[in-house]
Amino acid sequence: MSLYPYLDQIQTPEDLRKLNISDLPAVCKDLREFIIDTLAGVGGHFASNLGVVELTVALHYAFQTPRDRLIWDVGHQTYPHKILTGRKDELHTVRKWGGLSGFPKREESVYDLYNTGHAGTSVSQALGEACARDLVGETYKVVSVIGDASIATGMALEAMNHGGHVKPDMLVILNDNYMSISKNVGSISNYLNNIITSQIYNKWKTVFYQFLKWLPLIGPALEAAAHNMESSIKHFMLRPGGLFEDLGFNYYGPIDGHDVERTVQMLGNVAKIKGPVLLHVLTQKGKGYKPAEVDPIKYHGVTPFNKEDGKMASADSNKIGLSKIVGRTLMDLTEKNPNIAVITPAMIEGSGLREYQEAYPKHTFDVGIAEQHSVAFAGAMTNGGVIPYMCIYSTFLTRGMDQLVEDVSLMNLPVRFVIDRAGIVGADGETHQGLSDLGYLAGLPNMSIMAPSSAQDIIDSLHFMKDHSDGPIAIRFPKESGDLRELKFETPNPIQKGKTRVLSKGNDVLLISVGSMLAISKQVKEKLEEAGKKVGLIDLFWLRPFDKGTIEQILGEVSRFAFIDESYVHSGASGYLLNEIDPKYLSKFLKTFALPLEPIHHGERSQVLAHYQLDPEGITKEIIRLI
Amino acid sequence: MSLYPYLDQIQTPEDLRKLNISDLPAVCKDLREFIIDTLAGVGGHFASNLGVVELTVALHYAFQTPRDRLIWDVGHQTYPHKILTGRKDELHTVRKWGGLSGFPKREESVYDLYNTGHAGTSVSQALGEACARDLVGETYKVVSVIGDASIATGMALEAMNHGGHVKPDMLVILNDNYMSISKNVGSISNYLNNIITSQIYNKWKTVFYQFLKWLPLIGPALEAAAHNMESSIKHFMLRPGGLFEDLGFNYYGPIDGHDVERTVQMLGNVAKIKGPVLLHVLTQKGKGYKPAEVDPIKYHGVTPFNKEDGKMASADSNKIGLSKIVGRTLMDLTEKNPNIAVITPAMIEGSGLREYQEAYPKHTFDVGIAEQHSVAFAGAMTNGGVIPYMCIYSTFLTRGMDQLVEDVSLMNLPVRFVIDRAGIVGADGETHQGLSDLGYLAGLPNMSIMAPSSAQDIIDSLHFMKDHSDGPIAIRFPKESGDLRELKFETPNPIQKGKTRVLSKGNDVLLISVGSMLAISKQVKEKLEEAGKKVGLIDLFWLRPFDKGTIEQILGEVSRFAFIDESYVHSGASGYLLNEIDPKYLSKFLKTFALPLEPIHHGERSQVLAHYQLDPEGITKEIIRLI
Repeated sequence: MSLYPYLDQIQTPEDLRKLNISDLPAVCKDLREFIIDTLAGVGGHFASNLGVVELTVALHYAFQTPRDRLIWDVGHQTYPHKILTGRKDELHTVRKWGGLSGFPKREESVYDLYNTGHAGTSVSQALGEACARDLVGETYKVVSVIGDASIATGMALEAMNHGGHVKPDMLVILNDNYMSISKNVGSISNYLNNIITSQIYNKWKTVFYQFLKWLPLIGPALEAAAHNMESSIKHFMLRPGGLFEDLGFNYYGPIDGHDVERTVQMLGNVAKIKGPVLLHVLTQKGKGYKPAEVDPIKYHGVTPFNKEDGKMASADSNKIGLSKIVGRTLMDLTEKNPNIAVITPAMIEGSGLREYQEAYPKHTFDVGIAEQHSVAFAGAMTNGGVIPYMCIYSTFLTRGMDQLVEDVSLMNLPVRFVIDRAGIVGADGETHQGLSDLGYLAGLPNMSIMAPSSAQDIIDSLHFMKDHSDGPIAIRFPKESGDLRELKFETPNPIQKGKTRVLSKGNDVLLISVGSMLAISKQVKEKLEEAGKKVGLIDLFWLRPFDKGTIEQILGEVSRFAFIDESYVHSGASGYLLNEIDPKYLSKFLKTFALPLEPIHHGERSQVLAHYQLDPEGITKEIIRLI
Repeated sequence: MSLYPYLDQIQTPEDLRKLNISDLPAVCKDLREFIIDTLAGVGGHFASNLGVVELTVALHYAFQTPRDRLIWDVGHQTYPHKILTGRKDELHTVRKWGGLSGFPKREESVYDLYNTGHAGTSVSQALGEACARDLVGETYKVVSVIGDASIATGMALEAMNHGGHVKPDMLVILNDNYMSISKNVGSISNYLNNIITSQIYNKWKTVFYQFLKWLPLIGPALEAAAHNMESSIKHFMLRPGGLFEDLGFNYYGPIDGHDVERTVQMLGNVAKIKGPVLLHVLTQKGKGYKPAEVDPIKYHGVTPFNKEDGKMASADSNKIGLSKIVGRTLMDLTEKNPNIAVITPAMIEGSGLREYQEAYPKHTFDVGIAEQHSVAFAGAMTNGGVIPYMCIYSTFLTRGMDQLVEDVSLMNLPVRFVIDRAGIVGADGETHQGLSDLGYLAGLPNMSIMAPSSAQDIIDSLHFMKDHSDGPIAIRFPKESGDLRELKFETPNPIQKGKTRVLSKGNDVLLISVGSMLAISKQVKEKLEEAGKKVGLIDLFWLRPFDKGTIEQILGEVSRFAFIDESYVHSGASGYLLNEIDPKYLSKFLKTFALPLEPIHHGERSQVLAHYQLDPEGITKEIIRLI
């Protein structure tokens, strides 16, 4: 007998909708088991997917997908959706090279309307779909699902502000992981907690009683009657969801998102309401798998684990992620300088700042998913004598691009940017690639840019940046790790501003390696030497200021040169460098080895590089062909 | 006797604070007269400055500037501030080359804390200042002033969300031009109107009466008593400013921002309150100058005008701004295709869309100051069969950079981007320059990019874009105008995708001119020819796809080539082109004539270009020197 008898009947949501509503709990049970069984074997996003099992079933049951438009925010919680829309048998390939994406993907299915990955886009997309529908005279429903952290992003609030004004028929599901300990920050998070725990309600109830006492007519009978009015008061005085109502949405909820039958009924009801509606649904991350319920942060993304006890394979104890090296170095720095602050847009864990936050809570500013604000906020802190380290992933810094230009670089404010996950990010894929930051940063007035090529470089750079107070400065590094046994946290090496590193000389071809590509560049050098070529190698390190003197001197000696850069070819170091190097040397320019300007899919870094012939073999072969 | 006896006593805010509070109305009268008299002569931002005369006086009187931190949002309303902080005698130079900036500017005064220009930054900056103050142990006050349109931007809401959570002492002044007819859009705008007009209050009052009727004890006496409770109800049941309270701010107001004495008192009161406070102040744009009160949009920015009747010099009737050409062309297109939509982030006037909106209100989507949302919204509209033209200024598109990458280009959605004010913007200066868009756009997968060189090109391009449904496409053009007599709206010229324009051949040097620089490039060509050189000239037109075949063929024939581009040198067309052109031709590369990577100050385009030797003389001279 099948392990998942109900799930096996479902190839498409149409199959699901043929079932009785009373069968849905059994479908959910199968779905949850299938996810646990599969991810125990292959890993992937976990806790958030367990949290939306019932909600996903209810949505596909209540709405006529794909005719009705179902739009997911961020999208790492779409595994149940993928399973119900024909991709069950491929789930074990998720996040692997050539396998399913860990996010919605249009190329995979007509049920995936948008390739997502960044937070807060779904309300804009639902509103765009709804306005388009009305303009062309269609009638389908538009539904989006957004989490409680994502709804506080600027773009989601902009979309609510617009949607509440134009008022098309649309439904926003607020998927609120109220029991999560992921420590969402921000007033809106507090506000949602207040609705749930009825603290506002209790406050207003108290106020109401005081208020009643002012009435000349008040007496014991009214006091008693007042107690019976609780539910009425709750709706009239608490205004649950008043924040959303003020933004022009009809608010309903909160409802239990794990009661699949009740959720189906509620979806059916709110779908009939005209205008924009927000339905507040409470779910629990990790629901149904005890270790994930207890520690949803640990089980947000998993490596293969033992289903019985939840244990994941332990990592090499000598390895330390570059993010954690940053966290530890910033602790060392803050210990000696109380004016340091660390800013992160909702990435305490990912940016290796958990221990930092515990040690220096007053120096830690987790601003929520608010990249725009975070950059301007960091700029302003410099005006108050603070030394702000702004820790952010490359892909998310793009959200703060305007603030980088206007609120930092044009004013030459000395914000220290610590850009993590630069380069190929691996399993997250195209929406998270950090392949543009060098190009964007190189187009900013006053910005200094370092591309470390080793874990020790990062420690050294962070120390150097502390005293770099005459303008903004950035380091960018990949999602890699270092070897603890080789790192000198206590005795960082001094850094000289604008000094590039000439690792070897050789006149046939000069390789100018940018940051994270150094290890590969070294292998290219060896292979070329094996082929009888004389190879020079420069570890660029400083993109700005660019070490014009040193590099042009060497360019004068070599026959040809190439850049090797883990960026998009058109948004990396080379566009900048080709405009900086004296044109008389450009006749020697061979090629920029970098990623082509197209969506770069998920997979291991080595797989992606090999696919684009950016591995040592590929680069070597091409150089030999060209020279 | 002086025309402005009170104002003449004030060189610094310290002088202002020596006056009696009862003298402040006279100061305001002088200040307003001085602004009217000065701007009648030289032009500048007008209506918004008249609106904040009393508020500005009250702020500098109530707070100890510059020790207390006063932060302005956007900043075109800081003329009264500039006058009170020592810049009265320079106001007549405002927005002129070498003169005062039209925005706050750190280089001008210690009273200007940030160089601003884009909306919604002040709450982030105030919060950053307040958190920095608390971290380093200082005690000054932090106050920001933000308009009712700006406070609905994503980044301002992000900052409110964060500020309401960390709760430092800070004061946000919401400067609400409630009587303005500038047609702010969005729920928050509606919400503010509701507070003012008490519609919510009236609604809740009604509900409250109904609610009371349910009580068994209700009777005529209670009904009568209820009427007396209005003010109590208002505060307990209306929750005026509940939206801001939900975001964690203490809300006070609204108060009359033209009652300077009352405003001073209120500022003194709210300054004592702990935690974040929002004070809602009502002001009127154009206050005190009748024509501007009647039409604040017309008088938002003025050219020199007759003080008696407000008449500005009428423009050449044959001239039509490029923005208006866009609006008119989009009308022609929409007439024939009902699936066209036009999207603007709060720039109906500036983008020449007033007539379009009147003719096609259902096709017009003014999303408010919400660039992030606008781009994702446009992307989603394409999914619903709509042809969206996204009209935006170059400088503001940077706010939507992440959405350009993630929510449009990676998915290859056919949004039509119409990028206005690209290049040097003139009087607005450094915060508004459109010098980066080509570089950013060239780093986006799937994006097609046109740089029209004439007004007719824009008409032709907009027609071409309609049928360009296989991916996103952008045109960018400067703040210039065309000659109505030369334009063919009805009979646009066909455009061939990816076809560059070879205007002349000549082997000594090839000029590759990008978009708006064509007129100057033609003059350079003439001057070089006068100097005996044989000059080739290409009007690039298409940056992507780049006409590799045609251009490389010509590069094979010439001795040298140069780019001429109205962009930052490191964020323009050349970085892209140097990576696209076969390296074998790069030995012929001479130079990229473009703006250096530094803040480019305000002034007329010709003045700015001449300053950087990018006028015909400067470029010619440099080319002759180099070849």
